[in-house]
Amino acid sequence: MSLSRRFLLPARRLLQQGLQTECCKRLSSNQNLEVEHELETGLATVTLAKAPVNSLDGEFLTSISNTFKKLENDSAVKGILVASKFHGGVYSAGLHIFDLFNRSDSHVSEFWRCVQEWYLDVFGCSKPVVAAINGQAPAGGCAMALVCDYRVMQEGKIIGLNETQLGITAPFYLADLMTATVGARKSRLALQLGYLFSSQEALNAGLVDEVVDLDSVIPRAREQLLMMSKVPQPAFHITKQLLRRENMEVLKATREQDIANFVDFIQRPSVQAVMGKYLESLKKKKTLK
Amino acid sequence: MSLSRRFLLPARRLLQQGLQTECCKRLSSNQNLEVEHELETGLATVTLAKAPVNSLDGEFLTSISNTFKKLENDSAVKGILVASKFHGGVYSAGLHIFDLFNRSDSHVSEFWRCVQEWYLDVFGCSKPVVAAINGQAPAGGCAMALVCDYRVMQEGKIIGLNETQLGITAPFYLADLMTATVGARKSRLALQLGYLFSSQEALNAGLVDEVVDLDSVIPRAREQLLMMSKVPQPAFHITKQLLRRENMEVLKATREQDIANFVDFIQRPSVQAVMGKYLESLKKKKTLK
Amino acid sequence: MSLSRRFLLPARRLLQQGLQTECCKRLSSNQNLEVEHELETGLATVTLAKAPVNSLDGEFLTSISNTFKKLENDSAVKGILVASKFHGGVYSAGLHIFDLFNRSDSHVSEFWRCVQEWYLDVFGCSKPVVAAINGQAPAGGCAMALVCDYRVMQEGKIIGLNETQLGITAPFYLADLMTATVGARKSRLALQLGYLFSSQEALNAGLVDEVVDLDSVIPRAREQLLMMSKVPQPAFHITKQLLRRENMEVLKATREQDIANFVDFIQRPSVQAVMGKYLESLKKKKTLK
Repeated sequence: MSLSRRFLLPARRLLQQGLQTECCKRLSSNQNLEVEHELETGLATVTLAKAPVNSLDGEFLTSISNTFKKLENDSAVKGILVASKFHGGVYSAGLHIFDLFNRSDSHVSEFWRCVQEWYLDVFGCSKPVVAAINGQAPAGGCAMALVCDYRVMQEGKIIGLNETQLGITAPFYLADLMTATVGARKSRLALQLGYLFSSQEALNAGLVDEVVDLDSVIPRAREQLLMMSKVPQPAFHITKQLLRRENMEVLKATREQDIANFVDFIQRPSVQAVMGKYLESLKKKKTLK
Repeated sequence: MSLSRRFLLPARRLLQQGLQTECCKRLSSNQNLEVEHELETGLATVTLAKAPVNSLDGEFLTSISNTFKKLENDSAVKGILVASKFHGGVYSAGLHIFDLFNRSDSHVSEFWRCVQEWYLDVFGCSKPVVAAINGQAPAGGCAMALVCDYRVMQEGKIIGLNETQLGITAPFYLADLMTATVGARKSRLALQLGYLFSSQEALNAGLVDEVVDLDSVIPRAREQLLMMSKVPQPAFHITKQLLRRENMEVLKATREQDIANFVDFIQRPSVQAVMGKYLESLKKKKTLK
Repeated sequence: MSLSRRFLLPARRLLQQGLQTECCKRLSSNQNLEVEHELETGLATVTLAKAPVNSLDGEFLTSISNTFKKLENDSAVKGILVASKFHGGVYSAGLHIFDLFNRSDSHVSEFWRCVQEWYLDVFGCSKPVVAAINGQAPAGGCAMALVCDYRVMQEGKIIGLNETQLGITAPFYLADLMTATVGARKSRLALQLGYLFSSQEALNAGLVDEVVDLDSVIPRAREQLLMMSKVPQPAFHITKQLLRRENMEVLKATREQDIANFVDFIQRPSVQAVMGKYLESLKKKKTLK
């Protein structure tokens, strides 16, 4: 690792010293999502920029999906880094709960289909993808890290699939991903409790791969990504697909059933009631500020 | 954890200071199984009380199954603690080997069906279940801990699926549960060897979640259970079911085949011979005392 | 462990002091594979002896397969130790890459069928099998260790499924085996990167069970094997089969498809090009020496 660090540092410094106009091109961009491509290395950076906390509503999820579809098919792209615009604040606060509260069946269905599509496109991406978790990552924010190949996290933050605490449940494919990452025992306990890990606990459990100070999150994530992009790529792609095929196939075979189950669960009065209380408590927090 | 401890201690002391008549009701009880329900918290305690060592014969297994069916359907029950009456001695010595030695095919079949039913009812319970392992837990005793959500174990005891040492084999659904708990590598090794873990080894392997002194086993298990019972319950139930669905479904789909395979194996002369020697050695141990 | 060591040492010394003619018989032997059987313990030793680095070509794989078939069916054999003749050098350098480079579809197909058969016979062996990893173990060398029940490794060597670094991919059944051994997170990362673990890293990850100095590798492996051979054997066999059934069945059900997929991948010009460069670099290394 130290050898590759020595090699990579000059290139990295160059990239960070405002030379982006010469060595990067902006692949696409909208208000909520910035995508840059380093010509020298082939690395792309996807910056989640939906104010204030990158909450994942249907439109934002679709925007991320479409971006990953493009990057997957662009042979000049050798790897993808995912980071938040709100550096040191929030990586992503997770799914937009308002899309689940007091909504029609068809609204919830369409939203859930966007979640599935996002998972299939990001987890299913055959190129190296590294998460630079430069802020809080509860619920869907944790999921946005789990779908990547490697996770570098800022110290002193929290991460976890805490859905049960909001009265809802993580979809089976994200539960399976948590299990693959930390093992079945810790996954079962954490998901049932809706447990939020501190950065250090996440590192100990294997939920993230490195914990560093805020300034080092993006540089370390990029180093790791650059290293991964140098593995012979046809072999990398097919190996990555091989190791993810089972998870992907289960969801592909059961998408409609998964949507039906979720809508059935989420529309229960008892579930809506817990969500209502949770949203009420969020509102109060804002008022107190 | 320390915060919740401070909060819970007064309530716990109250419960332990002989005030049970006022705050608990005895839900049901027979010579072998005591069931109490704390009205304030909704927590139920199932105490295994079959002298001398809670050996699991067909009748006792069915009694546990039926109790869990009742607790599952009683909406006033918020969580279940499982402990042994023989505090500091034996949690459970495991399956009653005499039900497998020198018996008819139909006797072995019926016994094995009881084992399956017990697994389906206890592992399949959607409410929080915590094991207070207040004594030795070999073979089926270990299984009685594995089917729970969380395990607090007394220091200085042993636990493990040591069936191969008795010449028999753990059923696939318990092997799968061991694998989910400690990972495939350790599970394969431990099951093949019939390894019994010390409390400390079990903690290191993840086979139990906490090791404490005898006096703390039940209080700590109850604290954990109380915490789990406060997670929004529809979400807890559906998340727990989600995470266990695969294991449950495989057994449900193959019960008759599993029984046939087991009877076929257990009735082999070579297997009966090993069991015979084992039972002989047990008899000698008693005579020596 | 220390007790069993004390007990075993005299027997082991005896075996090592040139008394083999009296207590061992050579079961079979060819230039590439030596098989010895200790009459006292029932333990067999398979020594990989294909100069210079035990590279696994079709003939050598078949020779190992056939040997394991014989040992499986010989009721006098109680356990199998696998070691390299090139003690302290190379355990196995892995698959013979020349069988994949610039070959006909049918050549690659037949080679791949040998790899499958080797896996089914060694991983599927119901008796205890212990790897004495007395040298380097990259790629197929690592696989030759993963198919065993227990791994004792020489300090200061390397081990790993680094196929992606050669531009190829490990077959799904070896990827599944890596996942079972070190967990999905580490397996995914290591396989995608083509990572080679040092002995110590392999121990920390659970990829091997013990790391010892060169002189202790075979003695410790034999001690462990002797212990495993003393578990009641019908129970050991059926438990081992139970724990491996899933992996075995998936391959058995998809052998032809697996071959077709592999040939399709390996014959891609981009994959052949990476292999060509790799073989060129090997040739240069030799010239430099």
